[in-house]
Amino acid sequence: MQLLGCDVAALNTVQFSNHTGYKQWTGSKVSAEEISSLYQGLKQSYLDDFDMMLSGYVPGAAALEAVGKIAAELKERAETRPGSFFWVLDPVMGDNGNLYVTRDVVPVYKGLVGGADLILPNQFEAELLSEVKIVDMKSLGHAIEVLHERYGVPHIVITSVSLSHPDHPDDSLSVVGSSMTSDRKSRAFKIVFPAINCYFSGTGDMFAALMVVRMREAVCGTPGLLERDSWLSDNEVDALELPLAKAAEKVLASMHEVLAKTAEGIEGTMKKAREGVARNGEGGGVVDEEKKGHLLKSKAAELKLVRHVDSLRSPKVEFRAVKM
Amino acid sequence: MQLLGCDVAALNTVQFSNHTGYKQWTGSKVSAEEISSLYQGLKQSYLDDFDMMLSGYVPGAAALEAVGKIAAELKERAETRPGSFFWVLDPVMGDNGNLYVTRDVVPVYKGLVGGADLILPNQFEAELLSEVKIVDMKSLGHAIEVLHERYGVPHIVITSVSLSHPDHPDDSLSVVGSSMTSDRKSRAFKIVFPAINCYFSGTGDMFAALMVVRMREAVCGTPGLLERDSWLSDNEVDALELPLAKAAEKVLASMHEVLAKTAEGIEGTMKKAREGVARNGEGGGVVDEEKKGHLLKSKAAELKLVRHVDSLRSPKVEFRAVKM
Repeated sequence: MQLLGCDVAALNTVQFSNHTGYKQWTGSKVSAEEISSLYQGLKQSYLDDFDMMLSGYVPGAAALEAVGKIAAELKERAETRPGSFFWVLDPVMGDNGNLYVTRDVVPVYKGLVGGADLILPNQFEAELLSEVKIVDMKSLGHAIEVLHERYGVPHIVITSVSLSHPDHPDDSLSVVGSSMTSDRKSRAFKIVFPAINCYFSGTGDMFAALMVVRMREAVCGTPGLLERDSWLSDNEVDALELPLAKAAEKVLASMHEVLAKTAEGIEGTMKKAREGVARNGEGGGVVDEEKKGHLLKSKAAELKLVRHVDSLRSPKVEFRAVKM
Repeated sequence: MQLLGCDVAALNTVQFSNHTGYKQWTGSKVSAEEISSLYQGLKQSYLDDFDMMLSGYVPGAAALEAVGKIAAELKERAETRPGSFFWVLDPVMGDNGNLYVTRDVVPVYKGLVGGADLILPNQFEAELLSEVKIVDMKSLGHAIEVLHERYGVPHIVITSVSLSHPDHPDDSLSVVGSSMTSDRKSRAFKIVFPAINCYFSGTGDMFAALMVVRMREAVCGTPGLLERDSWLSDNEVDALELPLAKAAEKVLASMHEVLAKTAEGIEGTMKKAREGVARNGEGGGVVDEEKKGHLLKSKAAELKLVRHVDSLRSPKVEFRAVKM
């Protein structure tokens, strides 16, 4: 976000030694009280003049409620100036059928999504929120309809959809998005892209961070839209012409480039890491070769963001949105 | 650091709502135990393969000791491969005669600087460490000699020196640096630059972060130097040819550009901030106009880093090192 020109105030909800994909970590979660207190601190010094807010991984229900209160307050304050505050909510709960937050986080998200401007669930999270079992593109479309209608969420992007479909190959993934009309009907598009056979962590965070910038950028392309509530396009605007679709195309292009470059380097990075471990000695205690392999592989698969700045700034858009 | 290509693992020593220059903040300090535990977490997952470490603001003695232990362990492990680990220590204690850490931090820094490769004290901190009262360029030179000789610190840069001197105008500042010879003699240079009449916060952190990158870059320019203990140049190398001098020139060029551009925008930013406050209402409670002025001015003086990426990446070097 900083690289693309945003002035960012980061409020950490955890301080962990590493992401949880390593399956072991140290550090601690930030309490709900501290989250609220940090926001009060910003407020008392006039540092709360945010245009946008991105909320991500919040592992406990009380802390998530504290984050929700911040967003609600910023939204309320912006009521007299439509479009002046935009909340991107990534409802981080789990993936592939597994929760990685406590169970009581789920109902809190259900209570919060109605206040968000854009939500970015993955397929599993979209199921949890909509209570629609997603088994094919049709049920996916239905889940989106429910999210627009029941919660009134203006913009939705469902990231990493892996459903077979006649019009694209089996090893492809897709991103499906929609901006609702004034009567909460969906305008859905999908972007299909080739899957990379590697397990990455942090792709959801990367998608969300880029989406914040690209969504605003795309909205700026339509005169007056930035001053409209939730930046919602006229009903006449076609799914493929939505700022959301333009933004998602650009984000996906960046993602695909960075992921491909990261995947390319994995073998070399693994080799170097093994040499380093041999040289530096083992981190601690008895070594389980399987565990060690998992740790080194997780490290090698860390997204190579810093070295691929150009892919973040000016990606080449190859995969275009098509209508659902 | 990321912008200039470093893969960074940040270990927060505090989580505050804002920097302490605002004179009010919320949040908390990270305990010594948590700092140690986070490092253990990195270690157990083979994530501790650092080439360099930068330590900065650590407000308490126990936490600082924990940071010192991490550096000592990384240094010890690198002993068989000279130059493979380089510790940049910014001994953040205070400025202009005032401490902004607890008093017991001072002796801990005295115990730690001997293990550092490069230290970046300001004039006040250099006095505290060397126990030399700095009143003119001569006593400053003596303080540097003491730091090299007594502690064996290989590289020193004293940032923001404001001492009058016949060969430069009164409203100028200087940065004074030295890399010691093999017999711990100083090779001192200074870089004089015009002062900007504005109180900025975070300039020390900015200097330190850029110095990490530029020092390594400059050292890479001399074949074999990166594989030498503490990257110390041959005794024959002149003060002005030191990688430290080249690095400091570049860092200062970036600093001067960003500070000048930040200063230019201050009036406009203040005006915008006052409008925002009028619109959003007061942060909390009774408003003291003097306090409000200080807060808004502090905010307007926040270094504009994100918008001046080119100044960080490719600054124009105007102020050159001269011999002391």
